[in-house]
Amino acid sequence: MARTLNVGLIGYKFMGRAHSNAWLKADKFFDLKARPSMKIICGRDRSGVANACARWGWDKFVTDWHDVVEDSTVDIVDICTPNDSHAEIVLAAAKAGKAILCEKPLALDVKEAKAMADAVRKAGVVNMICHNYRRIPALMLAKKMIDAGDLGAIYHYRARYAQDWIVDPSFPLNWRLQSKTSGFGALGDIGSHVIDLGRYLVGEFTEVCGQMETFIKERPLLGDSGKKGKVTVDDAVTFIGRFQNGALANLEATRFALGRKNGIQLEINGSRGSVAFDFEDMNRLQYYNGHDPADRRGFRDILVTEPLHAYIAGWWPAGHIIGYEHTFIHTVADFLNAVTDKCNAPPTFEDGLANQIVMEAVAKSAQTKKWIKIGK
Amino acid sequence: MARTLNVGLIGYKFMGRAHSNAWLKADKFFDLKARPSMKIICGRDRSGVANACARWGWDKFVTDWHDVVEDSTVDIVDICTPNDSHAEIVLAAAKAGKAILCEKPLALDVKEAKAMADAVRKAGVVNMICHNYRRIPALMLAKKMIDAGDLGAIYHYRARYAQDWIVDPSFPLNWRLQSKTSGFGALGDIGSHVIDLGRYLVGEFTEVCGQMETFIKERPLLGDSGKKGKVTVDDAVTFIGRFQNGALANLEATRFALGRKNGIQLEINGSRGSVAFDFEDMNRLQYYNGHDPADRRGFRDILVTEPLHAYIAGWWPAGHIIGYEHTFIHTVADFLNAVTDKCNAPPTFEDGLANQIVMEAVAKSAQTKKWIKIGK
Amino acid sequence: MARTLNVGLIGYKFMGRAHSNAWLKADKFFDLKARPSMKIICGRDRSGVANACARWGWDKFVTDWHDVVEDSTVDIVDICTPNDSHAEIVLAAAKAGKAILCEKPLALDVKEAKAMADAVRKAGVVNMICHNYRRIPALMLAKKMIDAGDLGAIYHYRARYAQDWIVDPSFPLNWRLQSKTSGFGALGDIGSHVIDLGRYLVGEFTEVCGQMETFIKERPLLGDSGKKGKVTVDDAVTFIGRFQNGALANLEATRFALGRKNGIQLEINGSRGSVAFDFEDMNRLQYYNGHDPADRRGFRDILVTEPLHAYIAGWWPAGHIIGYEHTFIHTVADFLNAVTDKCNAPPTFEDGLANQIVMEAVAKSAQTKKWIKIGK
Amino acid sequence: MARTLNVGLIGYKFMGRAHSNAWLKADKFFDLKARPSMKIICGRDRSGVANACARWGWDKFVTDWHDVVEDSTVDIVDICTPNDSHAEIVLAAAKAGKAILCEKPLALDVKEAKAMADAVRKAGVVNMICHNYRRIPALMLAKKMIDAGDLGAIYHYRARYAQDWIVDPSFPLNWRLQSKTSGFGALGDIGSHVIDLGRYLVGEFTEVCGQMETFIKERPLLGDSGKKGKVTVDDAVTFIGRFQNGALANLEATRFALGRKNGIQLEINGSRGSVAFDFEDMNRLQYYNGHDPADRRGFRDILVTEPLHAYIAGWWPAGHIIGYEHTFIHTVADFLNAVTDKCNAPPTFEDGLANQIVMEAVAKSAQTKKWIKIGK
Repeated sequence: MARTLNVGLIGYKFMGRAHSNAWLKADKFFDLKARPSMKIICGRDRSGVANACARWGWDKFVTDWHDVVEDSTVDIVDICTPNDSHAEIVLAAAKAGKAILCEKPLALDVKEAKAMADAVRKAGVVNMICHNYRRIPALMLAKKMIDAGDLGAIYHYRARYAQDWIVDPSFPLNWRLQSKTSGFGALGDIGSHVIDLGRYLVGEFTEVCGQMETFIKERPLLGDSGKKGKVTVDDAVTFIGRFQNGALANLEATRFALGRKNGIQLEINGSRGSVAFDFEDMNRLQYYNGHDPADRRGFRDILVTEPLHAYIAGWWPAGHIIGYEHTFIHTVADFLNAVTDKCNAPPTFEDGLANQIVMEAVAKSAQTKKWIKIGK
Repeated sequence: MARTLNVGLIGYKFMGRAHSNAWLKADKFFDLKARPSMKIICGRDRSGVANACARWGWDKFVTDWHDVVEDSTVDIVDICTPNDSHAEIVLAAAKAGKAILCEKPLALDVKEAKAMADAVRKAGVVNMICHNYRRIPALMLAKKMIDAGDLGAIYHYRARYAQDWIVDPSFPLNWRLQSKTSGFGALGDIGSHVIDLGRYLVGEFTEVCGQMETFIKERPLLGDSGKKGKVTVDDAVTFIGRFQNGALANLEATRFALGRKNGIQLEINGSRGSVAFDFEDMNRLQYYNGHDPADRRGFRDILVTEPLHAYIAGWWPAGHIIGYEHTFIHTVADFLNAVTDKCNAPPTFEDGLANQIVMEAVAKSAQTKKWIKIGK
Repeated sequence: MARTLNVGLIGYKFMGRAHSNAWLKADKFFDLKARPSMKIICGRDRSGVANACARWGWDKFVTDWHDVVEDSTVDIVDICTPNDSHAEIVLAAAKAGKAILCEKPLALDVKEAKAMADAVRKAGVVNMICHNYRRIPALMLAKKMIDAGDLGAIYHYRARYAQDWIVDPSFPLNWRLQSKTSGFGALGDIGSHVIDLGRYLVGEFTEVCGQMETFIKERPLLGDSGKKGKVTVDDAVTFIGRFQNGALANLEATRFALGRKNGIQLEINGSRGSVAFDFEDMNRLQYYNGHDPADRRGFRDILVTEPLHAYIAGWWPAGHIIGYEHTFIHTVADFLNAVTDKCNAPPTFEDGLANQIVMEAVAKSAQTKKWIKIGK
Repeated sequence: MARTLNVGLIGYKFMGRAHSNAWLKADKFFDLKARPSMKIICGRDRSGVANACARWGWDKFVTDWHDVVEDSTVDIVDICTPNDSHAEIVLAAAKAGKAILCEKPLALDVKEAKAMADAVRKAGVVNMICHNYRRIPALMLAKKMIDAGDLGAIYHYRARYAQDWIVDPSFPLNWRLQSKTSGFGALGDIGSHVIDLGRYLVGEFTEVCGQMETFIKERPLLGDSGKKGKVTVDDAVTFIGRFQNGALANLEATRFALGRKNGIQLEINGSRGSVAFDFEDMNRLQYYNGHDPADRRGFRDILVTEPLHAYIAGWWPAGHIIGYEHTFIHTVADFLNAVTDKCNAPPTFEDGLANQIVMEAVAKSAQTKKWIKIGK
């Protein structure tokens, strides 16, 4: 193994942990073109980031993200902060010539996203948006099947990202529930994933029409149990639409589906076969082959844990399942190789921008109660 | 058991068989207020209807439906014909004072449906539209839970009726694929069922927005393999909307979902619990109770075959499952009781009309690409 | 349809209803070589059997089974009585030259079973034991696969028949819980079915070793709530063994598996594939094809409701599932054809005898704590 | 965090990787009483162990296990070698006063196991056998339920460990297929796990009766494709038995169940409830509560990923599933705490010995075709 690439991670909470773990493990399980060095971690809360630094074995910590971006030894900037800071950091990192991995959604709006995509293109830096679910082996198998024509012409993409963590009205008004920090609510946080998977698996959207709803309008303010504040993002969004290839789209994202914890349930129907998937059983792909012998057709419950499945040779024997965190490890592994090759691996910031355009169209559609075309 | 009610059945094919079987079995398994007598069966093809008559033990057959409607000994007219004849037969039967059971969808359009609902109301005859899926024990349990408040406030109704019997482009242009005989395609044939279940379980729709698609535009004419004709109905429809109680609706009906044979997949999420159902496993209801102890919450896979579940005491011991045909037996059993009581049991023609209004709104929405309000 | 065969049914309770329904419906759904005429029903309780007679449309009823056996117009004697009367009735019916359908288990012990098998052979009458589960389309598909070599050499047969209806210690001491009327308990009532399915699907047993248990030793006497009586049959049995073809057997029958209502869960593993089945989802067969492409192997969830599956063409379109009662209809349909052809269709009384030999070996093994060979 | 404990790992292949990963991650996700320091890794193949050392970040490597045991800085010896070397290493490590974690099965036979258990007891060193499946959150929930009496009296423990990796007769004769290196085959490798889970969840076995089979008698020698050698271990084992508390046992372990990759399928039925589990869906526990309201009983599909479930607070939000490797992390985390506390955490070597006694009884039973009592 040749090169070492120095990583600076900004953010240390939920996503920061997922990424720290990924940087720690990627070269233990995969033969990479470069070895990551966990150089610097950044967070605004000194004691929080100090703990994270010690725990994960980062070389040092800082509390100002500029210190990451401006550190000349840093090769890769990994952005795990709330959505409202993505743009500023990306613009600075691009300017500084860093390779950039950024959590989704890319930005608060299309304008920001466009500026970010422009910046990395202009700077010529390798960039990736962390739609980690693209790197689930089961979905990579679906992609392989679709690309090979095994599903034929695609008629339906039906996807739903369903959670239930804010059904309780006493859940507080955190940053994810405020538009100024989060942009959208369910749409941006989880809807963006099923939009991305639609683009990955089926193709580009051409038009959408949706509705958004905030079921609980006010919630307790954080740390001040007496007062309430207004929820300014969507609790749920549901929309229909169309893809360039003529397939019908039906997508939903909700934080109000009791019993669904992290359910990414999707089904794709084509002229030759169908696939279905649920993240809560992420090691499995359901596959119906319309050309199996007529008396024995049925959805195959494929346990996607064979060495020949994507990434699995790096892990464990068949049937020894992997979990959520592995999707991040696959992502940084591919990103490390991309940085070494100086050649982007999807999904790039262009994908992030395309995603943002769809989200904005959905939101506009919900607001205006009109169909919205997805511009070229 | 007291009275006997004489039944005249119009139509002897798929639905005619399902109803013949129901009339034959209803009083074998249930203690009814009246006993059905299988008096007369009607079909346009003499040899076909003669066979059906002999096989099922109807007293006699006729080839003109007027002979059923005008037969003074007939108490109940049961209509299992293609959709374009429902209205005419209903109007005549109502005029003749017959109790009427009519297959869904009620009519070709709202205008017809309204005339039919008016006619039975004016005539004061007992009437029911055969949305047999309302009488699946699992869905009656869901209804019971919802009515009892066990799901709390409803946030989401997500339903899909998925089949795959016309994915093959060489499937011929039968009556169900032509608007003049069928009205709508997937929307009327199967979409009407998930609309009905939405109205049954959640409440009235207030507005909808949808899209319809005909994937295969031309198909071989029946009995003339050389020529093709135009498909004039929808292969698939998908729409979003809202209920009066504020719940979001997401419905889909398609005949292009390979691997789904008769999949009626629905999920309802409320503030206290969720239920999920798939007709292909119709003896089961998935139920998530948000108030189970926190460490042991999960969707319960309820096998709805206990004697205390709706209708089951009439059938077999727990775990000895029932099937599709039983939903018709439940329907005619309740209808027989309703006729005896001279008191409608839902779903009535008013429900059929309400359903038709939703369907027409969906179709208009798809045509105009606009949201359509569901009038009062 | 040519001939009519007159049926005399002895027993009118649970099994009597299942058989009455089967005789009523068989020729409605299948084109049979003979039409059954529901001639006479017999039961010891006059009012009970009178009601059953009226309800099901039997021509008449009697209270002494000799009146069925000795009725010269009766062609078929169908025995649905408690196990302790099977032998006597069969011997008389055989002597009278009747075709005989008998509920399982055939007898109280091997001696009786042997006498019965001898009697029908000597009399030359068509005979069948009602192991209705052989005629589940999903299991017929499994059989077809096995016979075609699609599973290769069989290594494992693992089956369990699990119910829970007597877990409650206050459940009374009915005839099924007393050896003098029932012979065995779980072993005879439900274990016999999974033994039969093993013989049907895999082959002959060569040796067995088992254990039996009565968890609740005493139960309330029927109709006398104060007193208790001794349970003299097994609540559960579990045994291992071997088949002639070298496959390992692992069988279990229990009435003490809370949550399993009528679970017949079996799995067969061979050198080329596996199948799995659960009666509670009786329309489905799980099939793993070891020769599917390596990246897309998985258990196929085959919905066995296609017209080309056994019996289904007689029923409904794909996905419109059938239930428990249909297995009896298939059974009497085949039996009617067999009687017309004067040619046995399996499972015959010889199968019933073979089954009884296995059961007796299991019981003896449990008693002696030794392996018992199944003699040829 | 206070102390550091130095770890010496012996073995670097499949289990060595699983343990290296566990030592690396344990203190990243859990607040431990001591921090592990990855001091030394040992393997017989110099280049192999050198690579493992570099990859995983062990301080150094050695090729002779004595160098681990005799290293005075080493606190913990972790043994991941083939089964035939466990005893020798354990005896030396105990003598050297090391805390010992040993892979299962503990030994080649009971005699060895007894010596090992004696040695650690005499030496007073903390010891654990790595039955990692005990630390699956779903099974810990089952344990909690059973201990709390939520399942009532236990009637049945039915478990099967099923794999298919040697169905192909051309799979070579590796160390796991030879008794001299492996002791038993399926029995020791995977059967030991379901025995351990039975002891963990239900209690002590009192007697067993089983059969073992080697379906493929000869296999190609490793690295010498022309020649074959004799398989001297079992391909499959199936046995029945009893627990001290009266529950019936039915266990099976097989490497010949096509389609089952790492299926640990178990079900426990008690007087108040049942649980079922399959490792291939290891984040889920099926739970049937016999005291749920009568109309809504069913197996709950509990996604055991809530913060209040065992270990989960250390991982990710609800629904973000974990995998196989996490069971090792839980194991070493608990072991580290046990070593700090100088207080054993189960399963100890005594458990390993008890397990070995059951295995030996099963094997003797299969050999002699007799029931074997499990001594006190």
